[in-house]
Amino acid sequence: MQNTNSNKNPKVVIIGAGFGGLWAARTLANQPVDVVVIDRNNYHTFLALLYQVAAAELTAEDIAYPVRSVFRKIPNIDFILAHARRIDLQHHQIETDGETISYDYLILANGSVTSTFGVPGVEEHAYFLKTLEEAVALKNHIICCFEAAAREVNAKRKKSLLTFVIAGGGATGVEYAGALTELVHGPLIKDYPDIDFSETRIILLEAAEQLVSSMPSIIRDYTAGRLREMGVEVRLKEVVTEVYPDRVVLKGSEYIETNTVIWTAGVKGEGLAAASSIVVTRDGRVAVNETLQIHDQQNIYVIGDLASIKEGQRILPMVAQVAIQSGVTSAKNILRQTAGLAPQPFIYKDRGSMITIGRKAAGVAIGSRTFTGFFAWVMWLAIHLFNLIGFRNRVMVLINWAWDYLLYERAVRFVFPSETAFHPKSSSCSSGTMHDHDLHKGV
Amino acid sequence: MQNTNSNKNPKVVIIGAGFGGLWAARTLANQPVDVVVIDRNNYHTFLALLYQVAAAELTAEDIAYPVRSVFRKIPNIDFILAHARRIDLQHHQIETDGETISYDYLILANGSVTSTFGVPGVEEHAYFLKTLEEAVALKNHIICCFEAAAREVNAKRKKSLLTFVIAGGGATGVEYAGALTELVHGPLIKDYPDIDFSETRIILLEAAEQLVSSMPSIIRDYTAGRLREMGVEVRLKEVVTEVYPDRVVLKGSEYIETNTVIWTAGVKGEGLAAASSIVVTRDGRVAVNETLQIHDQQNIYVIGDLASIKEGQRILPMVAQVAIQSGVTSAKNILRQTAGLAPQPFIYKDRGSMITIGRKAAGVAIGSRTFTGFFAWVMWLAIHLFNLIGFRNRVMVLINWAWDYLLYERAVRFVFPSETAFHPKSSSCSSGTMHDHDLHKGV
Repeated sequence: MQNTNSNKNPKVVIIGAGFGGLWAARTLANQPVDVVVIDRNNYHTFLALLYQVAAAELTAEDIAYPVRSVFRKIPNIDFILAHARRIDLQHHQIETDGETISYDYLILANGSVTSTFGVPGVEEHAYFLKTLEEAVALKNHIICCFEAAAREVNAKRKKSLLTFVIAGGGATGVEYAGALTELVHGPLIKDYPDIDFSETRIILLEAAEQLVSSMPSIIRDYTAGRLREMGVEVRLKEVVTEVYPDRVVLKGSEYIETNTVIWTAGVKGEGLAAASSIVVTRDGRVAVNETLQIHDQQNIYVIGDLASIKEGQRILPMVAQVAIQSGVTSAKNILRQTAGLAPQPFIYKDRGSMITIGRKAAGVAIGSRTFTGFFAWVMWLAIHLFNLIGFRNRVMVLINWAWDYLLYERAVRFVFPSETAFHPKSSSCSSGTMHDHDLHKGV
Repeated sequence: MQNTNSNKNPKVVIIGAGFGGLWAARTLANQPVDVVVIDRNNYHTFLALLYQVAAAELTAEDIAYPVRSVFRKIPNIDFILAHARRIDLQHHQIETDGETISYDYLILANGSVTSTFGVPGVEEHAYFLKTLEEAVALKNHIICCFEAAAREVNAKRKKSLLTFVIAGGGATGVEYAGALTELVHGPLIKDYPDIDFSETRIILLEAAEQLVSSMPSIIRDYTAGRLREMGVEVRLKEVVTEVYPDRVVLKGSEYIETNTVIWTAGVKGEGLAAASSIVVTRDGRVAVNETLQIHDQQNIYVIGDLASIKEGQRILPMVAQVAIQSGVTSAKNILRQTAGLAPQPFIYKDRGSMITIGRKAAGVAIGSRTFTGFFAWVMWLAIHLFNLIGFRNRVMVLINWAWDYLLYERAVRFVFPSETAFHPKSSSCSSGTMHDHDLHKGV
């Protein structure tokens, strides 16, 4: 142990190295507590740009940052690479896939995971976009579809390979629809001279009446309009009822033949709290009190996506700013508790929200002001670049963006790893899933 | 098909998009032949820098380049992503995991694969360093060893986790020994304050009396001396007789306890030729005549690592220059054949050889001249940067090198993908192989 007086200081365990967990830990840096950060990955992921990894624009490494680098010079913060399985509330211990870790105070910052809402076939056949592994598997699959389509002689199967359905018109669905369209009609159209690109379809399905429903109406309208101009088929009030390997079924029994359904329709709280007998809401989040503590457990805080935080009548959204601010508050409250003071209520400062649709097209809402188009896009670029952790990552992302936006080129369109068995739904181009569908035909 | 007169032109199929295959294809660009390049990956890999991917210095994407980008503007070259399974010599067809592909002329540029020489346990327990997947799996494993060692309370197991054995003192083994040492004693020593780095051991085993035996003696001596100065235990005339998950056994029954054996001791010709009843040498290569054709098959050429090319008494080594030059000659000979002319003998021009040991340390041999130290290292950097395909790759590699050599930092030390099931020997840090060895202990 680095800290020589580790037996005296209270031990704070933070589960999760997302924005919430990192900011909580930073707030506890060089304070009279021993901090342990646990994450199942040895890196922090900048999730706001995950869709660009899935669109062959950035590498996985560009949006990841080693957790140990963040805390290198902070003697009271330790990192453990482990997957937390269950919290033993009675004995103040966390069971992991490795060692068992005790805590005096606990900050749950596990975040959120994809929710299928129990729609049949989604878990088995749809692609997700919530982790780096999923983003890479999706990118590999997209390129494999074009490789297979270039050799496919059956017109029906070719059409299915070139049809991409995104289910869920929230921020992730919208941003991926735009990025995928620019990938397909930019670099890929140059790569596959044998494919008739008028056959490619990108369809964005949304169950509600609007895309990005949390945005102001001017941005909602701009988003839908811009996507349609780019050629995305935006279909509102469409509910997916079932997903098969070769089709997606909509309410009313209509179906679309496709080998690619990308599920961005819902998220829920990560499962650790529920597995530990902590009461969760219908969407798997933990309802916290105004100080971010949970009922009956004065030493457990929940922050970020996992926390269901009430602000008047509304529940705060699952966004980075909520995670960061609740992380800071939870850490300050623990320091107050260790000093014999009462924890203070969390007050959220809304810094605004933004969405990007594609090259020179974004929407930004700050307070009652909204911006769309080129200026909003430049703001989006600057803010995302600024919020990336690590100077090298910023340089690399900047170079990749310059490549894309100036040269209309995506440099990372590799099918790698080629045998992507790490994601059950991912397909290797020349073996596995694609073959089961009999896509490769002799000529 | 892009080419409108594809029925008239002879069809040349090139299997493999390494240096040999790419240069053969480039030579056939815009000539009166239809060219099809087949590779199991959609990218070309710059293998000379593979060891830097395994040492967390470069990303996999930095040394890969999409094959379709190379041939985008060349109408008579097509690419098929497929894994060739067998050549039907009688019917002039290639059976793949997808379609069957016919040929008039065939260039075999499959390259080489790792050879275990049948040493027990190598296939199952040793790490290889011959493909991008293997390099990433090895990097992930190295980092996992340090993560596990940071938590390990058993001294014997900790020592085993921190012992790294490289079997094979050729160029790959030497370069990886140097790069691994700089990774361990540069960034990792800063990442793991709880580990006593005097416990780490990097051992390079070589069966012969010299490292890099093909190099001039001045460079061989410099290499061994420099590695020893860096702290690598260079052990010559050591033969590995068996590999277990937790130890490597040497001739004479001595063993070294380790969780990491990296096998760089041998390569052999890729298996397609042998699987197609083409006669191969003891090391799986195809003996070609002086025009690079194989016996009895006037329309089949073999180039690069797969070809056993005689030059006087010696067989040409498996290096990029042989691949490039034999690729060009094979293509020219096919064009001569299609024009009714006789193929011409291959004449190899030796451009010299080089090896890098680490920061400011390399050896270069050109003709009878040799260079070692800083100047040789700068030559090595420049030549490798120049030979990388793609401007973006050069920029990215340059940035990563600057990061490493100026800041003593490695930016890509992520365990990603975290569930590296794509390589049977790789271990996820918090599940899988490591657990089977019971490395995680409760505290």
